[in-house]
Amino acid sequence: MDFKEELKNYQILIDKELNKYVNKEECPEKILNESIEYSLLAGGKRLRPILMLATYKMFKENIEEVFMLAVAMEMVHNFSLIHDDLPGIDNDNLRHGKPTNHIKFNEATAILAGDALLNKAYTLMSEYLKKETDANIFKKIEALGLFSESINKMIIGEYIDTEYEGKMITGEYLEYMYKHKTGALIKASVQIGAILADASEQEIENLGEFAEKIGLAFQIKDDILSETGKVEVTGKPVGNDKARGKSTFIAAYGLKESQEILDIVIKDALEALEGFGKKAEFLKELTLFIENREK
Amino acid sequence: MDFKEELKNYQILIDKELNKYVNKEECPEKILNESIEYSLLAGGKRLRPILMLATYKMFKENIEEVFMLAVAMEMVHNFSLIHDDLPGIDNDNLRHGKPTNHIKFNEATAILAGDALLNKAYTLMSEYLKKETDANIFKKIEALGLFSESINKMIIGEYIDTEYEGKMITGEYLEYMYKHKTGALIKASVQIGAILADASEQEIENLGEFAEKIGLAFQIKDDILSETGKVEVTGKPVGNDKARGKSTFIAAYGLKESQEILDIVIKDALEALEGFGKKAEFLKELTLFIENREK
Repeated sequence: MDFKEELKNYQILIDKELNKYVNKEECPEKILNESIEYSLLAGGKRLRPILMLATYKMFKENIEEVFMLAVAMEMVHNFSLIHDDLPGIDNDNLRHGKPTNHIKFNEATAILAGDALLNKAYTLMSEYLKKETDANIFKKIEALGLFSESINKMIIGEYIDTEYEGKMITGEYLEYMYKHKTGALIKASVQIGAILADASEQEIENLGEFAEKIGLAFQIKDDILSETGKVEVTGKPVGNDKARGKSTFIAAYGLKESQEILDIVIKDALEALEGFGKKAEFLKELTLFIENREK
Repeated sequence: MDFKEELKNYQILIDKELNKYVNKEECPEKILNESIEYSLLAGGKRLRPILMLATYKMFKENIEEVFMLAVAMEMVHNFSLIHDDLPGIDNDNLRHGKPTNHIKFNEATAILAGDALLNKAYTLMSEYLKKETDANIFKKIEALGLFSESINKMIIGEYIDTEYEGKMITGEYLEYMYKHKTGALIKASVQIGAILADASEQEIENLGEFAEKIGLAFQIKDDILSETGKVEVTGKPVGNDKARGKSTFIAAYGLKESQEILDIVIKDALEALEGFGKKAEFLKELTLFIENREK
């Protein structure tokens, strides 16, 4: 199976799993559920759950063991997108080429749909803890702790991003922000996959190093696309970051240097995978995919 | 020790515990932390953690065992207050007699402080799972599941409250809303205390019944105070609910009948405690306190 096919299969699989947790019952909160479904099934890249499953698969075949965790991670990611798009934060109207949640529904519904998604992710985590699986209970609890810590970091990153809009930001500071905002969930996704698949401590560390690099690469590429991408392809307004005075790699380093930094970070990510040999083939391809993506 | 003294002691104890989880470090997210602290230490009634500790104490003396859970519950309550007050939801300027979080800081900070509080509550839950305590791990996981389910319900209740503003609402529907919005966390607080103190299934059920009733009583009383209270005492604007066309007991039944319903619900709550004898003394007093409070 080639990389593109494998990636597609993962995406289909994750969308199918996400669908299971969408509540379509007739109930007074039906529209809240529709709003959750709207964002959750809007067709993102599913990068975080894919990373979790692919990392798990480096060590064990039975990836269905961690489906619930992959879904929980994607829920958290979608919670963060809904809240980031709110008028009080980024005030974005378009996401994945569709109206953002608060535009499609309303602001109150979007706030509460985000809250519900974050909380439902934990409901899933608690069900996973109850469930009989390969992993022992202490590994599961370790995964829960990592999950929770990474979300704290993500929220901090989002706060810094918001707070420093329109202000000068140093490259060092920018990295701190991105490490939190995008990097934390990506790193946790990879490491949770590794922990539950019984990877060694050294392997978990190396994969964490890899994840930090692709997290950063992903964000640099995002900044580049926000400047140079096409709205028909990215589904997001182009030049928005700049107009708003957002702290981005482009603002700190310019387009050319940002591209050079991206190349270095991608090289570092690939290096962190070296010890894993053929097992890491998919993650290597994914790294190059992140570098070359157009949306 | 008389009831008022015991209540005060609980409040002091909880405030002290909450203080431990406030981050005062110098870091880029310092203001976010200040915003969290601002709301968390604004001096609420601490009803939910008090209920958890007092219920636990009916069966076991060592209440310090569940301090982390009591703190987590109060964090969740405060998350819900910050988000409810947002311009996109209730648009309230005053809470506990002080400017609401988004007025004191700004909207983005308030959204993210709420998110952070919800998530930090789970970080505490995960630390509690790791910690060595009296309770076995499966009871702890049961408590986590109950915690998470109750928050889902609370968010649904808040959604319904928002969605039905200005619309006619039946008494039945109003009860559904309150059972979710206020009742869920109160019931979970009581039942988590009971579960972790090794109460029997029957006891857990009876206490759940009690909690449902005081949850409802609490909310009816809130509606009455919102109509008849004094702003200097309640710390909240009076007549706000009415002006906004909120779905309240007053709107559905009028003041006199609401007072009668409150009396019945209080009687039911006390009845649910009957089998516990002297052990339930504090909870009985607390029930009367809820009925007669002026803020």
